[in-house]
Amino acid sequence: MAMPSSPIRKLVPFSDAAKQRGIKVYHLNIGQPDIETPKGAIKTLQNTEIGVLAYSHSAGNLSCRKKLVEYYKRWNIEVGADEIIITNGGSEGIQFAFNACMDPGDEVIIPEPFYANYNGFALTAGVVVKPIVSVIDNGFALPPIEEFEKVITPKTKAIMICNPNNPTGYLYSQKELQTLAQIVKKYDLFLFSDEVYREFAYDGADVFSVMNLKEIEQNVVMLDSVSKRYSACGARIGMFVTKNKEVYNTAMKFAQARLSPPSFGQIFTEAAVDTPQSYFDAVLNEYIARRNCIVEAINKMPGCFCPTPKGAFYAVARLPIDDSDNFCKWLLEEFSYENQTVMLAPATGFYSAKGKGKDEVRISYCLKVSDLQAAMKCLEEALKVYPGRTK
Amino acid sequence: MAMPSSPIRKLVPFSDAAKQRGIKVYHLNIGQPDIETPKGAIKTLQNTEIGVLAYSHSAGNLSCRKKLVEYYKRWNIEVGADEIIITNGGSEGIQFAFNACMDPGDEVIIPEPFYANYNGFALTAGVVVKPIVSVIDNGFALPPIEEFEKVITPKTKAIMICNPNNPTGYLYSQKELQTLAQIVKKYDLFLFSDEVYREFAYDGADVFSVMNLKEIEQNVVMLDSVSKRYSACGARIGMFVTKNKEVYNTAMKFAQARLSPPSFGQIFTEAAVDTPQSYFDAVLNEYIARRNCIVEAINKMPGCFCPTPKGAFYAVARLPIDDSDNFCKWLLEEFSYENQTVMLAPATGFYSAKGKGKDEVRISYCLKVSDLQAAMKCLEEALKVYPGRTK
Repeated sequence: MAMPSSPIRKLVPFSDAAKQRGIKVYHLNIGQPDIETPKGAIKTLQNTEIGVLAYSHSAGNLSCRKKLVEYYKRWNIEVGADEIIITNGGSEGIQFAFNACMDPGDEVIIPEPFYANYNGFALTAGVVVKPIVSVIDNGFALPPIEEFEKVITPKTKAIMICNPNNPTGYLYSQKELQTLAQIVKKYDLFLFSDEVYREFAYDGADVFSVMNLKEIEQNVVMLDSVSKRYSACGARIGMFVTKNKEVYNTAMKFAQARLSPPSFGQIFTEAAVDTPQSYFDAVLNEYIARRNCIVEAINKMPGCFCPTPKGAFYAVARLPIDDSDNFCKWLLEEFSYENQTVMLAPATGFYSAKGKGKDEVRISYCLKVSDLQAAMKCLEEALKVYPGRTK
Repeated sequence: MAMPSSPIRKLVPFSDAAKQRGIKVYHLNIGQPDIETPKGAIKTLQNTEIGVLAYSHSAGNLSCRKKLVEYYKRWNIEVGADEIIITNGGSEGIQFAFNACMDPGDEVIIPEPFYANYNGFALTAGVVVKPIVSVIDNGFALPPIEEFEKVITPKTKAIMICNPNNPTGYLYSQKELQTLAQIVKKYDLFLFSDEVYREFAYDGADVFSVMNLKEIEQNVVMLDSVSKRYSACGARIGMFVTKNKEVYNTAMKFAQARLSPPSFGQIFTEAAVDTPQSYFDAVLNEYIARRNCIVEAINKMPGCFCPTPKGAFYAVARLPIDDSDNFCKWLLEEFSYENQTVMLAPATGFYSAKGKGKDEVRISYCLKVSDLQAAMKCLEEALKVYPGRTK
């Protein structure tokens, strides 16, 4: 099966080239947080007596799912333990959603730019992605309802969103989600919502979950993960959540085929739900400082624009460049400032529409402020001398 | 997507019914070993300092892959760390093999009875399974070469085997595998070999890996897992191994889409490779005693036949019954002997051919000998009174 390369990975050889030149690279290209994983949850796993490391239930240990019910309740999301399937990271949950709700040839509408790996999961499921474009000028808000209706066909089975959004950092308002619910209801579609950045909402903004769109309760599948929440990307624990019994039971057949999700990660996750609020407060303050650092820096650079994201830890910025792929490659291969450079993700990889994103880059602000400052200085100097500068 | 239920799971409600009747159930239906997981490897994980539980490399941590190279060398399998992808259990490795080597509509030949979940992975990949029948009378040996050739079409892309075999316990000889290599070579097919039961070979038998079929080196993908080897089913760590660079690179794209395999499980696995031989010697002696217990017991029962498996911890037995689904259900719903009964897997679920396996059951001998003796007594008494007995 022909599978596209990840748009982020394709720069890796150039990153190696930078290292070979003896240049320090600030990695603003990937979403690997540097935040410490909650010590308490790690300790719990490390103190748990394990005799036989057995398969768990295919939906995950009941005790872990019950703990997740508690977690969701705190976010005003009412779900039962029998409405949750614990998955191998958020990735597997997306695969389950595609496989359980759609047949090969069916279409899913996704506002773009979107998380590039959705393409890979769609391809594996034989599902066709129909992108509709959201634009940087309004910070990548939900496209108007007519844009959705333009691409709806008899093959359309679902709409997929990521909220807060990777790569744009946009946080959908309750009103936008209710608009989406109308379309979903009118055409009887599924709504898949990737909410793995729930904890990362800034400036007092509320995160409204699709699980609370009561009028389309039976159409909704929420995808979730502990990776970002607890800086535990390596745990590979995600959640597939739905109130639709038929969808749940179908997804369970896929879950049973792969037997069970990781047991160590489930022990960790069950304990992590008790992570004190002070942990998140500190993390949030840190990310707000990081976001402000990059947004302010970029908006001061001539010809540049970066909307202020309200969530996640990414931003998409518009730069005065001819081709973001070339620019990002050039940063690694040819440029340096005081023996340093910066690695960014060309936004082209987050669009399906050809030509889109050529003057945009995604910036992941997962590094500490002093590193981000140095990285922004590199970017500023780079834009002064980049041969493909447009204005 | 319509996904078949697991043939083993469909009996679960009846097992609950038995419990509600207050009957003790001996679970000979599943392959969850009761053997203790190596304490040393668990301890290593529990003593490892973890600050940020980050994504690993998509192929798995290099240190873990290097350790696996050591492991394989002990089995005379020469592979490099860059020929291994660490997967979410053996299950994901099978998915990678189907997705990387085959297109939707392509055909894979699998001797049946076979591990029922292969069907689910094939379905998800859009791949068509073409079964050829192996028979109980010769202990489920490799079907003759003509049987393969009969079903080969232009769509045939691969042959898949499990060695030692689940569900039959059959261990393919080096000669049989060389026969298979001839077909693979003649028709330029892939050979997928699921070798997760490598450690479980009895009576001094050698396990010959397809990785050592030098003449078809570029056609081979080996699937592996720590689940059975270290009684660590919950670790969800498997391996996808191939010397074919193109196949490896394609599989890596699927691996990158799901980001990484579980980190805790990789720390465990790296340590588990150093498990002393004494652990395996004890396990092997235990399983030989278990196997002998059930094989001898069944062959003494009138009208019953159970070949002596040389590997894994399963056996398929022929019983004088009309319908193994009915029989297994009846055991749980209606039968008891001294307040006990036994749960078996109807062999029908391991065949695609309709009508096959109606007088066969799969027995997993993962329980201690005293439990197996009690379970065999139940089976013996059950066959005396089962209303659908045929002779």
